[in-house]
Amino acid sequence: MENPRVIIVMGSDSDLPQMAAAAQILEDLQVPFGIHVSSAHRTPEKTHQIVAEGEKNGAEVFIAAAGGAAHLAGVVASATALPVIGVPIATNVMGGMDSLLSTVQMPPGIPVATVAIGGAKNAGILAAQILSVKDQSLRDRIRNYRQTMANGVKAKDEKLQSMTVKEYLEQMKK
Amino acid sequence: MENPRVIIVMGSDSDLPQMAAAAQILEDLQVPFGIHVSSAHRTPEKTHQIVAEGEKNGAEVFIAAAGGAAHLAGVVASATALPVIGVPIATNVMGGMDSLLSTVQMPPGIPVATVAIGGAKNAGILAAQILSVKDQSLRDRIRNYRQTMANGVKAKDEKLQSMTVKEYLEQMKK
Amino acid sequence: MENPRVIIVMGSDSDLPQMAAAAQILEDLQVPFGIHVSSAHRTPEKTHQIVAEGEKNGAEVFIAAAGGAAHLAGVVASATALPVIGVPIATNVMGGMDSLLSTVQMPPGIPVATVAIGGAKNAGILAAQILSVKDQSLRDRIRNYRQTMANGVKAKDEKLQSMTVKEYLEQMKK
Amino acid sequence: MENPRVIIVMGSDSDLPQMAAAAQILEDLQVPFGIHVSSAHRTPEKTHQIVAEGEKNGAEVFIAAAGGAAHLAGVVASATALPVIGVPIATNVMGGMDSLLSTVQMPPGIPVATVAIGGAKNAGILAAQILSVKDQSLRDRIRNYRQTMANGVKAKDEKLQSMTVKEYLEQMKK
Amino acid sequence: MENPRVIIVMGSDSDLPQMAAAAQILEDLQVPFGIHVSSAHRTPEKTHQIVAEGEKNGAEVFIAAAGGAAHLAGVVASATALPVIGVPIATNVMGGMDSLLSTVQMPPGIPVATVAIGGAKNAGILAAQILSVKDQSLRDRIRNYRQTMANGVKAKDEKLQSMTVKEYLEQMKK
Amino acid sequence: MENPRVIIVMGSDSDLPQMAAAAQILEDLQVPFGIHVSSAHRTPEKTHQIVAEGEKNGAEVFIAAAGGAAHLAGVVASATALPVIGVPIATNVMGGMDSLLSTVQMPPGIPVATVAIGGAKNAGILAAQILSVKDQSLRDRIRNYRQTMANGVKAKDEKLQSMTVKEYLEQMKK
Amino acid sequence: MENPRVIIVMGSDSDLPQMAAAAQILEDLQVPFGIHVSSAHRTPEKTHQIVAEGEKNGAEVFIAAAGGAAHLAGVVASATALPVIGVPIATNVMGGMDSLLSTVQMPPGIPVATVAIGGAKNAGILAAQILSVKDQSLRDRIRNYRQTMANGVKAKDEKLQSMTVKEYLEQMKK
Amino acid sequence: MENPRVIIVMGSDSDLPQMAAAAQILEDLQVPFGIHVSSAHRTPEKTHQIVAEGEKNGAEVFIAAAGGAAHLAGVVASATALPVIGVPIATNVMGGMDSLLSTVQMPPGIPVATVAIGGAKNAGILAAQILSVKDQSLRDRIRNYRQTMANGVKAKDEKLQSMTVKEYLEQMKK
Repeated sequence: MENPRVIIVMGSDSDLPQMAAAAQILEDLQVPFGIHVSSAHRTPEKTHQIVAEGEKNGAEVFIAAAGGAAHLAGVVASATALPVIGVPIATNVMGGMDSLLSTVQMPPGIPVATVAIGGAKNAGILAAQILSVKDQSLRDRIRNYRQTMANGVKAKDEKLQSMTVKEYLEQMKK
Repeated sequence: MENPRVIIVMGSDSDLPQMAAAAQILEDLQVPFGIHVSSAHRTPEKTHQIVAEGEKNGAEVFIAAAGGAAHLAGVVASATALPVIGVPIATNVMGGMDSLLSTVQMPPGIPVATVAIGGAKNAGILAAQILSVKDQSLRDRIRNYRQTMANGVKAKDEKLQSMTVKEYLEQMKK
Repeated sequence: MENPRVIIVMGSDSDLPQMAAAAQILEDLQVPFGIHVSSAHRTPEKTHQIVAEGEKNGAEVFIAAAGGAAHLAGVVASATALPVIGVPIATNVMGGMDSLLSTVQMPPGIPVATVAIGGAKNAGILAAQILSVKDQSLRDRIRNYRQTMANGVKAKDEKLQSMTVKEYLEQMKK
Repeated sequence: MENPRVIIVMGSDSDLPQMAAAAQILEDLQVPFGIHVSSAHRTPEKTHQIVAEGEKNGAEVFIAAAGGAAHLAGVVASATALPVIGVPIATNVMGGMDSLLSTVQMPPGIPVATVAIGGAKNAGILAAQILSVKDQSLRDRIRNYRQTMANGVKAKDEKLQSMTVKEYLEQMKK
Repeated sequence: MENPRVIIVMGSDSDLPQMAAAAQILEDLQVPFGIHVSSAHRTPEKTHQIVAEGEKNGAEVFIAAAGGAAHLAGVVASATALPVIGVPIATNVMGGMDSLLSTVQMPPGIPVATVAIGGAKNAGILAAQILSVKDQSLRDRIRNYRQTMANGVKAKDEKLQSMTVKEYLEQMKK
Repeated sequence: MENPRVIIVMGSDSDLPQMAAAAQILEDLQVPFGIHVSSAHRTPEKTHQIVAEGEKNGAEVFIAAAGGAAHLAGVVASATALPVIGVPIATNVMGGMDSLLSTVQMPPGIPVATVAIGGAKNAGILAAQILSVKDQSLRDRIRNYRQTMANGVKAKDEKLQSMTVKEYLEQMKK
Repeated sequence: MENPRVIIVMGSDSDLPQMAAAAQILEDLQVPFGIHVSSAHRTPEKTHQIVAEGEKNGAEVFIAAAGGAAHLAGVVASATALPVIGVPIATNVMGGMDSLLSTVQMPPGIPVATVAIGGAKNAGILAAQILSVKDQSLRDRIRNYRQTMANGVKAKDEKLQSMTVKEYLEQMKK
Repeated sequence: MENPRVIIVMGSDSDLPQMAAAAQILEDLQVPFGIHVSSAHRTPEKTHQIVAEGEKNGAEVFIAAAGGAAHLAGVVASATALPVIGVPIATNVMGGMDSLLSTVQMPPGIPVATVAIGGAKNAGILAAQILSVKDQSLRDRIRNYRQTMANGVKAKDEKLQSMTVKEYLEQMKK
């Protein structure tokens, strides 16, 4: 098996149902990745070790996901000069504003590339976009993905033009 | 000189004007302390080293102050089983809500004892209260401090009873 | 039975399902504690009495939990020089921002050691950490607890390494 | 001098510049009042004493002003069955949202009649409105005050109709 | 039947399930009241008419409840010099922050006595407290109500002292 | 069929259940409209095309609905000098504050007429109001609609006057 | 002089420095307008009178600007079936979130077309866009205005391409 | 001169004083970049043209900075499959929460790599990190930069150890 080019780290396995979307899109885009559970606070050494080993084995992007006082992305970013993507996990505090602010508001010098609250899929796409800087075929796969997505929107609009609002709503319920 | 019982760590020396109040109250309450500049993100190893050495030399409480994605208190708490006090530094984002949320919203297992935004003085008092659990004379000094503070409020009220609101406001301006 | 070293006070018994986690972890860490229902607003005298009696009987830390205009921790802190831990109870207003702000934003002189919204377990751990300042065997129990917690995270990661994301998600549902 | 019918309590004399507007409007409406500095946290006993003595001497409304974890109005309301008006003092945290939420979000049973952040003048007017329930001449004075205020707005509009926007802006600068 | 001393106005009958608590407590405290559905925006004239007729028939306090851009209390307050109590109805926008801010942030001159989000019961109690300024027997009924409420809290604490946390939780579920 | 005078654009067909209310009220007010699914980000060209064709075919108002980083209304407004109405779709982030702020906070020069979070019905009414500037019979239909709405509120109040609060609540449940 | 087609109402003349931008752009776009000071709360009758007279004299759009519990736009909208534009005036509470929420969160049936906090200029442009629905020459003037604005941006970019960032910054300071 | 590998776009030249830090760090890290003023709303075509030409000329990362309803980064991301970094410009609305939410909350499929409010420097570093995926010597320059930064923190701490807090504060003022 190929060495992972992207390493996903989650603070808790309770984040996995959300983060599975990042894994899925990386698989779809044929980007080899690894995925780990490790906490910034409960297993700081393991977290550093995952980063160090990942980097040694050729990983080029990290994705870190955490909720609440979400320090995981920052801790990963403090341990590597590679790009780090942060996914703020949704919480009950203003819908995840605690996760968002503690992920995005990094001090000058140590950036975290933050995506939307719960934005696991976009974290995967962003990781692929970053790798596509040196991988033209990956860039093509991303463009194909975007084209497919656009076609999906267009198909929905065409369908809506062919029926009444009520009919469309009826079909959505099915 | 005595070994410090409290270690104050700040993410940046720009926090010192705020954090000086913590140092001052510890001095007033005769609690030996150390004070350091070290960043969770820029100097993670140094931060861990300060915690490890502090603990080895007998420190029993840590105070960590940071702003924005304020991970410092959490990083310190991940490195020691001793009580850690967090001071959210005021910022321009909702007056420091980013600092507050990223300090206080710690996951189960690793608490940070958080004080008010900019609450450096209270961080010092809380550290002293914690140490007073085994130090009756320190507890007495804290009680004296509280009594003095209460007397100050009472003196202001007495003064207000002796004059008009306008006169009091005049004297405040001087 | 031993005198309680920690006193937990809740503003309402509707807070008990959340606060039971504080009681549980104190029991696990073998810290004797008492637990009371008393409101800052509905039974202010009883609240002061609980604090006074608790202190007289040797309590060394208080935990106060309340929601909304959460004044309980502040009222307890106004009545004792001992360390007071505040637990903001989750509400529907921005997920408990009313509870958090009215617990943490204490004025200079009277700190409340605030934990996360709904952070009952961490309140118990923090109380134990404070007491561990003079109790080496308690500090060891806390360290053991942290080690066990870390091992749990590591076991989850190992499990994740041994199967696919889909398989892990399947097992979580069971 | 008449016994005060309204008692104003502030948590700190630093609130006086804001609260002077409450005193002024009560004076304008000829409502006898007292004004005190006393803190919910630093001088809890004095606060209770002010309430008890005020009530004994015939006070019928309390106004309490505080900032941050603004417990003062709640503490006053816990000590009297008379109506209590709360003034959230402006702070740097979202412009005083901490003060507002900790004043207004009182639990069922113990209301605080909350006015706007920094709404000292309205606290005075509301106190007068409450007293006017049994004082027809006070109600007339309040109506006169409102009429005068309305006339002021109308005079400004008439002035604006008589000149250009630029001319009006010029005159405002003078 | 007695003329109402308190008039409750709701912007929509969908507010009635929440506002019924205000009606209930006024009934319990034996305060005659009227209750109306009328919107600040959809039926502005009817709203003014309710206020004018209520005042003519001897009402002395108004309670107005609305959600979202909650203008009802302000519109009522613009139409009478009597005290007006505002109840911000809970919404999905930050748990009702839109309702709270548009009720409480009134301009100088026209106060609204605002209670907690969803604080219908407290609106009723506050109305009674205002009327008790000239009604000693009502004040006694309010004191009795507070005493009963305090006794309820004390009874719960006594019960908690007589059993384990788990047993209490078990009994709560029944 | 008449050319549409109003064009509704949604970022996703998942917005249709909310936006159906805009379509319904336009139908009720006899305003011909078109409705499309097109995303600012996924199908930017299609979005521009819908605006250009709509304008060419005589549309005079646009309604754009989106959630999260809700750019759709702004993108439509950048492509036409006609009035554009924005509907912020409710989300889990503070109840849709992300949608509201990214719709309403447009820079000087390019306004978006923003309605409430989830305010699809009002978007339809506002579009009709705008068209009524040159269509007296439409203005009459809007006035009739408002009158009917007012009558509905009055009918509810009359019903409430004819029964007890409990009876009304009972009838609401049916 | 022509009858005004747009009526601007402000809650206070302290809003005039902000609202002057609405007047200016209407003048630039050659749209006749009137401008008034009248408060929803202090002069409710005058406010209704301004709306009624404006409408009688041929006004077709209203602009209402207020801060805090900003009810003015809603009150105007309750009094006319014509389109009403709301301008939330900036305040110190979260930068004007109180004004924004109390302007935009209108209930179904009575929309307010809300622009950005402090968005006076855009209110004027939106009013012109609404009127342009039946006024082709006005639409052309709006398009010209937009073109000029776009040219301004392009000129700035051309200038930036012709010099270094530092030189541009230097020139900005002058 | 080399073709730019990074293109910075700002919505307004008033953002340049903040965005100059991005230009500076790219210069320091020897990454060729271009910088433009172009608005998502005022000059949408020019914005698309900058993206298309940039990409054609070999740019591999875009940085987009805007405030308020900050759509620029999203509009750029809708026009290219390359990674796009968003810089939310600070505003007066909760310190820039409008800019942050409208930059970061992108829908699935079109990510924007968001940095802190006002985080221009980190945007530059992140762009460099992304390019370093295929440029080992750039990665070394980033590591050097981080080392220099860490040394700066350590030097400050050493200085603080060599003097009193007061002396350090004195020297900061100079």
